[in-house]
Amino acid sequence: LTDSFDIRDTNVRISLPAVCFVWQIAMIILFGVFIRYNYESDTHWVEYMAQQNITSNIENDFYYRYPSFQDVHVMIFVGFGFLMTFLKRYSFGAVGFNFLVAAFGIQWALLMQGWFHSLDYTDGKIKIGIENLINADFCVAGCLIAYGAVLGKVSPVQLLVMTLFGVTLYAVEEFIILSVLHACDAGGSMVIHTFGAYYGLAISWVLYRPNLDQSKRLIGSVYHSDVFAMIGTLFLWMFWPSFNSAIAYHGDGQHRAAINTYLSLASCVLTTVAISSVTQKKGKLDMVHIQNATLAGGVAVGTAAEFLLTCYGSLIVGFCCGIISTFGYLVLTPFMEKSLKIQDTCGIHNLHAIPGFLGGVVGAITAAAATPSAYGEEGLIETFDFTGNFKNRSPNIQGGYQAAGLCVALVFGIGGGILVGLILKLPIWGDPADDACFDDEAYWEVRPE
Amino acid sequence: LTDSFDIRDTNVRISLPAVCFVWQIAMIILFGVFIRYNYESDTHWVEYMAQQNITSNIENDFYYRYPSFQDVHVMIFVGFGFLMTFLKRYSFGAVGFNFLVAAFGIQWALLMQGWFHSLDYTDGKIKIGIENLINADFCVAGCLIAYGAVLGKVSPVQLLVMTLFGVTLYAVEEFIILSVLHACDAGGSMVIHTFGAYYGLAISWVLYRPNLDQSKRLIGSVYHSDVFAMIGTLFLWMFWPSFNSAIAYHGDGQHRAAINTYLSLASCVLTTVAISSVTQKKGKLDMVHIQNATLAGGVAVGTAAEFLLTCYGSLIVGFCCGIISTFGYLVLTPFMEKSLKIQDTCGIHNLHAIPGFLGGVVGAITAAAATPSAYGEEGLIETFDFTGNFKNRSPNIQGGYQAAGLCVALVFGIGGGILVGLILKLPIWGDPADDACFDDEAYWEVRPE
Amino acid sequence: LTDSFDIRDTNVRISLPAVCFVWQIAMIILFGVFIRYNYESDTHWVEYMAQQNITSNIENDFYYRYPSFQDVHVMIFVGFGFLMTFLKRYSFGAVGFNFLVAAFGIQWALLMQGWFHSLDYTDGKIKIGIENLINADFCVAGCLIAYGAVLGKVSPVQLLVMTLFGVTLYAVEEFIILSVLHACDAGGSMVIHTFGAYYGLAISWVLYRPNLDQSKRLIGSVYHSDVFAMIGTLFLWMFWPSFNSAIAYHGDGQHRAAINTYLSLASCVLTTVAISSVTQKKGKLDMVHIQNATLAGGVAVGTAAEFLLTCYGSLIVGFCCGIISTFGYLVLTPFMEKSLKIQDTCGIHNLHAIPGFLGGVVGAITAAAATPSAYGEEGLIETFDFTGNFKNRSPNIQGGYQAAGLCVALVFGIGGGILVGLILKLPIWGDPADDACFDDEAYWEVRPE
Repeated sequence: LTDSFDIRDTNVRISLPAVCFVWQIAMIILFGVFIRYNYESDTHWVEYMAQQNITSNIENDFYYRYPSFQDVHVMIFVGFGFLMTFLKRYSFGAVGFNFLVAAFGIQWALLMQGWFHSLDYTDGKIKIGIENLINADFCVAGCLIAYGAVLGKVSPVQLLVMTLFGVTLYAVEEFIILSVLHACDAGGSMVIHTFGAYYGLAISWVLYRPNLDQSKRLIGSVYHSDVFAMIGTLFLWMFWPSFNSAIAYHGDGQHRAAINTYLSLASCVLTTVAISSVTQKKGKLDMVHIQNATLAGGVAVGTAAEFLLTCYGSLIVGFCCGIISTFGYLVLTPFMEKSLKIQDTCGIHNLHAIPGFLGGVVGAITAAAATPSAYGEEGLIETFDFTGNFKNRSPNIQGGYQAAGLCVALVFGIGGGILVGLILKLPIWGDPADDACFDDEAYWEVRPE
Repeated sequence: LTDSFDIRDTNVRISLPAVCFVWQIAMIILFGVFIRYNYESDTHWVEYMAQQNITSNIENDFYYRYPSFQDVHVMIFVGFGFLMTFLKRYSFGAVGFNFLVAAFGIQWALLMQGWFHSLDYTDGKIKIGIENLINADFCVAGCLIAYGAVLGKVSPVQLLVMTLFGVTLYAVEEFIILSVLHACDAGGSMVIHTFGAYYGLAISWVLYRPNLDQSKRLIGSVYHSDVFAMIGTLFLWMFWPSFNSAIAYHGDGQHRAAINTYLSLASCVLTTVAISSVTQKKGKLDMVHIQNATLAGGVAVGTAAEFLLTCYGSLIVGFCCGIISTFGYLVLTPFMEKSLKIQDTCGIHNLHAIPGFLGGVVGAITAAAATPSAYGEEGLIETFDFTGNFKNRSPNIQGGYQAAGLCVALVFGIGGGILVGLILKLPIWGDPADDACFDDEAYWEVRPE
Repeated sequence: LTDSFDIRDTNVRISLPAVCFVWQIAMIILFGVFIRYNYESDTHWVEYMAQQNITSNIENDFYYRYPSFQDVHVMIFVGFGFLMTFLKRYSFGAVGFNFLVAAFGIQWALLMQGWFHSLDYTDGKIKIGIENLINADFCVAGCLIAYGAVLGKVSPVQLLVMTLFGVTLYAVEEFIILSVLHACDAGGSMVIHTFGAYYGLAISWVLYRPNLDQSKRLIGSVYHSDVFAMIGTLFLWMFWPSFNSAIAYHGDGQHRAAINTYLSLASCVLTTVAISSVTQKKGKLDMVHIQNATLAGGVAVGTAAEFLLTCYGSLIVGFCCGIISTFGYLVLTPFMEKSLKIQDTCGIHNLHAIPGFLGGVVGAITAAAATPSAYGEEGLIETFDFTGNFKNRSPNIQGGYQAAGLCVALVFGIGGGILVGLILKLPIWGDPADDACFDDEAYWEVRPE
C-alpha cells in the first residue's frame, strides 16, 4: 500500500539553484583565500629556472603530465558520462548530471586535497599545478563511480550532497592511505575504486526502494543507447593506461604503468567475451558485459601498475577480472538486489568494488614481493619512495601497509556511505517516486517526438 | 504572399564541385609557390641543432605543442561538428559541412596567416611548423562559430564563400590586433570568438528570413540528437584548457592558461545549471543551456588565461558567464529574432559574442593591472612580450591596446559580416527555400527508414 | 535452390569461449617466457640514465611517443569501431567485435613483432616499451581493415582466426619490408594498408556468397547509424597525423610527418565532396563517401609523410586520392561484386587498397628523388637510415627497395588471404546464413524495443 502513496515531488527549482549558487560563491571565496599558482605555473617560473639551473621549459611538470591529464579528463566527462547512457530514457541524466557532479566536485577536491597535500606552510596557501588538476579529477572519479549505483533513483541535489561529502571523505582517506600509511596507489584501486564503489553501494543500500519494479519499463537499454554507452566504455578503456600512469613517477614509472594497464585491459576483454558467451543461449554476447566487465582489468592494476608487476602478471590480473566481473553481472547483481537489498543500477560492484579490492590485494602482494635484486637498489627506493621517515621500511612491511590502506578505503567507503545515505534519506531532496525512476522527464525538459 | 513564390533551388551539382576543385587546385599552386617546412620540420633540423647547441630533439616545438594541437583539432572537427547535431534532421549538415568548411579553411589560413606572420624575407617563403597548424585551426574556428548562426539556412557553397572571406578577414584583424597593436590573445576571446560571432550574426542579419517559421517543424531536437550534441559539448569543454594554452608561452604560460581555463569552465557549469533550473517549470533543466552556456567560461578566459588572472578570478569569470550566457538563451535570442531580425540558430551570440567580448574586457583589465611585483620583472616582460619595439610599454598602456584590439575584432566582425552577407544574398548559391531549412534532404542523400 | 538449404547455425557458445580462453592462457604463458620491460620501462632506468649521462627523465621515449600512442589507440578502438557502425543493425558487431579483435591481436602482435624486432639476444627475451605498443596497434589495424571487407558476414570466431593468421603474416611481411629490404614505411601505406586491404579482399573473395541479397534489407544505414559512423570517421581523420608520425624519427621526422598528413587529409576532403556532389542527382552528397573517401589522403601519405614530400606534394596526393577513392565507391565496388565476386562491405578497396598502393608508389618515387642537397647530408642519412649495412645505399636504389616492399605487401596480402579464406570456409565456425547477415541478432542479445 505504501507505494500508492509515493507521491514524491521532483521539483528542485529552489534547491538545485540554491545549492549551485551558494556553493559556487563559497568556492570563489575559499579559492581567493587559499589557492595560488605553484612555482611551475607562476610567472616567477623563469626566475626559478635560473635559480635551480633548469635549462629548459620542457622540465616544467606540465609537459610530463598534461597529455595524461587530458586523457583522464576525457575519462571523467565522456567516459563515465557516456558509460551511463545505456538506459533507454536516462541519457540526459547520465551525461548531464555526470557533468554537473564532476564540475562541482573538482573545485572542492582542489581545496580538500590541497589542504592535505599542497599546503605551503610559509604562507598558508595551497599551491596548485597540473598534478593537482589530475588529482581533482581522480577524486571526483570516486564520486562518479558512486553515482553509478544510484543512477536514475536520485535527484541532482542529492548527487551534489553526495559529492560534497564524497570528496571530503576521499581527501581524508587518501591522506591516511598515501601520507600516513605511505602506501602507493598511483592508479587508485583502493583510494578511488574501492572507496568510491563501497561509498555508492552503502548509499544505495540505505536508499533501498522495495517498489522499484514500478519503474521496470524504463530499466534496460534500447539499441542506440547501447551504442552511446560504448563511447563511454571505449574512452575509458583506451585512456586507462593514462589514468594509471598520470601521477606515477617520471620516467620508467609512468612508462611501466601504461604498459601494465594496456596488457591487463587487453586480457580482460577476452575473458569477458568468453564468460558472456558461454553463459548465454547460443553463445550470444550481452552488451552489459562488454560495456563494463572489459574495464575491470584497468581497475585491478591501479595500485600495482607502477610496480614490477611483470607483463604476464598484468595479463593474469586482467584474465581473472574479466571472469569475476562478468560473473558478477550474471550472479551477484541480482543476488545483491534480492538478498542484500542493494540496488546497483550500473553494477559498480562488479566493475569497481571487486576489481578495486583485488587491485589492492595485488598491490600489497607485489609490494611485499619486491626485492633489491629485481628493482635495483635505487629503483626500489624510487618506486616505493623509501625516503625520509620511510627510508628504513622494507618491501615486506610496505606490503602490510598496502593492505592496511585497502582496509581504510573500505571503512571510509562503507561507513561514509551509510552516514551520507541517512542524510540523503531525508524527504527534502526532490528524489523521484518509485514509478518515476530512470526517467529524464523528472529533471529535464524533454521535447515530445 | 512572397513566401509562396519561394521556390529556391538547392541544386549545387555544378557550383559545389566547381568551387571545391578550383579552390583546391589554387591551393596546390599557392602552396607550391609559397609554403615550405620551417627549420623544426625540415631535414636540416639536425644541422640546426648542432649550430645552436641544442642537445635534444625534445626541444623541437613539436613536443611542446603537439598534444595541445591534437586537442584543438578534436574541438574543431568533433567539438564544433557534433555540438551542431542537435537539430532533429540536420545532423549530416552539421557534422558534414563543418568538416568541409574546416578542411577548406585551414589551407587558406596557412597561407593568409603565413604571409602575415611566418614569411621568411630571405627567400619569400612561408615556413610552417606545428604552431602554424594550431593557428590555422584557430582561424577556421572563427568561421565555424559563424556557421552556428546560419546553420540549416545556407547552402554548402555559401559556407565556402563565407569561409573564404572569413579566413581572409581573420588574418587581417589578427595581424592588426597581435602584431600592430601588440595585444595578447592566446585563447582568442577577441580574435576568434568576438570576431567570429559578430561575423556570423551580421551575415545572419543580412540574410534574414521573415518566413522561416515555415520550417519550424524541423527546429528543435529529438532525444538522440541531444545526446549526439553532448559529444560536441563535452569535447569542447574538456579540451578548452588545451585551446587556451596551445600557443601560450612555453613553461608557466601554457601551464597557467590550462589551469585558469579548467577553473573557469568548472564554475560556469554550476551557474548554468542554476539559471537553467530556476527559470523553468519545476526546476527542469534545458539541454540547450547545458550544451552551450557551460562553455562560455572557456571563451571568456581566452585572452587572460595566460595572465595572472588568479584562480579565484577564473572562477568569477566562469560564474558570471554561466549566468549571462544562459539568460542570453532565455531572453536575448528570442528578442534578437523578433526585434533585431537576427536569426541565430545555435545561439552563438550567447556562447561566443558576449563571452568573447567579456573576455576581451577581462583581458584588458587584467593586463592594465599587472605589476612587476606580482609578475616579477622577467615574468612581466615575458608574459606581455615587452621586447623590441615594445620594451618601454607599461601594463597600463597594454590594457589600452588590449581594449583597442577588442574594437578591431568587433569592427571586422560586423563590417565584414555585412559585406559578405550581401554577397551571399545573391540568388546564385543554391540556398534552401524558407520551408526547406534545417533539412538534410536538401544537400544529402538521406535513405528512407 | 542451394540457398533454401542454407541453415548455418550461428551458435558459438563452445567455440568462442574456447578460443578466447585457450588463446589468453597461451598468451600468459608466452608472455611469461618471453616478454620483459625494456630499459626505459624498467626500474633500472635510473641506473641506465646515470651510465649514459642522460640528465632528464624527459628523454625517456615515453614522452616522445605517448601522446601519439594514445591517438593511435583511439583510432584503433573508436575510429575503426565506429566507422563500421553505419549499418542499420550491425552496430554492436561493428564496435564490439572490433574491440575483441583488437584486444586479441595486440597481444599476439607484441610477441610476433617482438621476436623479429625487439629480441635481446643476450637473454632471449623480448624487451618492450611504448614503441612496441604503437606497433602492436598498427599491426591489428591491418586486421581491422580486413574486417571491413567481411563485416556482417562472418562469426566472431572466424574473426579471431583471421586475426591470428593476419598478425602472423603481418609480422613476417613487416620484417621483410622494413628489415630485410630496409624500406621505410612509418605510416604503413604498404605494411598496414596494402597488406590489410588485400588480405581482407582475398578472404572475402574466397568466402563469396552468391545469395547475399537475401540480407539486402539490412544493407545500408539509417539516419542515426550514419551519425555514429561519423564519430569513427572524424577520430580517424583527426588523429591520422599522429598515426603517420607515431614511430617516425624524433624531431623533424615526427614533425614533418604530422604536417604532411594534415595537409593531404585536408585536400582529400575537398575532392571527395566535389566528386560525391557532381555524380549525384541535384548535387547531393552521399554519406558513404564523406565517411570513407575523406580518409584516403591519410593512407596515401603513410610511406612518404616523413620524407621531404613537400607541402604541395601532400596536397596533390590528397587531391588525387579523394577523387580516386570516391570513384571507387561509385564504380569499382559494384563492379567488383558483380564481376570479380568480391563483396566488400565497407569498401576497403577504395579506402585502403588503392590509396595504400598509391602511397607505396609515392613513397618509392619520393625516396628515389631524394638528394643530399635537398635533405642535407646528415638529414638524408637520418631520414632513410643509411647506416650500418646500408650506409652505401643511394636514394635511387632505396626507391627500388621501396617498390619491392610494396610487392611484398601485395603478395602477402593476397596469398595469405586466399589461404586463410580457405580455412575460414570450413563449416565449423558458426558464420551466419545468407539471409541472416548484417544482423546483430546472430551474436548479440538484442533487447526488443
